[in-house]
Amino acid sequence: MALDLNNYVESIPDYPEKGIIFRDITPLMADGEAYRQATDRIVQFAKDKGVEMVACPEARGFIVGCPVAYELGVGFAPARKAGKLPRETVEAKYDLEYGTSALYMHKDAIKPGQKVLIVDDLLATGGTIGATIDLVEQLGGEVVGCAFIIELKDLNGRKRIKDYDTLCLMEY
Amino acid sequence: MALDLNNYVESIPDYPEKGIIFRDITPLMADGEAYRQATDRIVQFAKDKGVEMVACPEARGFIVGCPVAYELGVGFAPARKAGKLPRETVEAKYDLEYGTSALYMHKDAIKPGQKVLIVDDLLATGGTIGATIDLVEQLGGEVVGCAFIIELKDLNGRKRIKDYDTLCLMEY
Repeated sequence: MALDLNNYVESIPDYPEKGIIFRDITPLMADGEAYRQATDRIVQFAKDKGVEMVACPEARGFIVGCPVAYELGVGFAPARKAGKLPRETVEAKYDLEYGTSALYMHKDAIKPGQKVLIVDDLLATGGTIGATIDLVEQLGGEVVGCAFIIELKDLNGRKRIKDYDTLCLMEY
Repeated sequence: MALDLNNYVESIPDYPEKGIIFRDITPLMADGEAYRQATDRIVQFAKDKGVEMVACPEARGFIVGCPVAYELGVGFAPARKAGKLPRETVEAKYDLEYGTSALYMHKDAIKPGQKVLIVDDLLATGGTIGATIDLVEQLGGEVVGCAFIIELKDLNGRKRIKDYDTLCLMEY
């Protein structure tokens, strides 16, 4: 039976700062059945897209995307913060509220022409996911879809990735 | 056919510092079949242990452990660095070469009596895994096994977890 995944999200007011409501999905991951159903809905979305690789930004993205890669029987490419990948990388900068940050991917993480599904826990402003798409495309990969557990509608991240087929399991 | 997983490890000399050989398992994860076989060997190890939860330290641990949790049909509990978990946590300190660090887990991440499998990419000195075991046991969980992709024999991490049933897929 399909679970209502909203029952597995903990909303924490004023975290990490006043006025922000943090949507915590650790209860979803802690429940074997909820975690499985969330994963399987993303796998279902991916199934007719010919996905060859799953790419995720660290670290919560790994929790959502790695079981998807496993179940699809495809490889996994991590997008990581500076200093975490030991070999030659490509870089994608993105804006934060104040200043900028960057994500990196190994140069051989994606082969040219590979069809890539991008997965993260949360679509907010779309900065992280935009950088992950950028990395995949720098390497010649084709982004065939983006999937998230939660979309924060007010932050308009969807606008940033409007050219990509996108799945969000829940909206807030 | 069983793959030789050693063929999917990239050894990088003098990283992150001179004299250290870094064992990079991103090529293993990038290959769908190798990633699946590594996961399935851990699932096989876990199968008769009655595992109810998988716990992993961030962030590479998530890449290895999350598909294991998914395939076993159990929940997942992340052990994270400071400031990453929004609700009440327990803390476990551990030694680094210089100074100490700490890992945290939500207080409700593990229920008392739950049987927990601990998974990480690499067993080195055992500091991180010791802290993860500590967190699980503080919460009343029973650690029924530890599994790693790689063991660095010279660093003696195995000694630290000698009381736990342990699987390492490769040794260096």
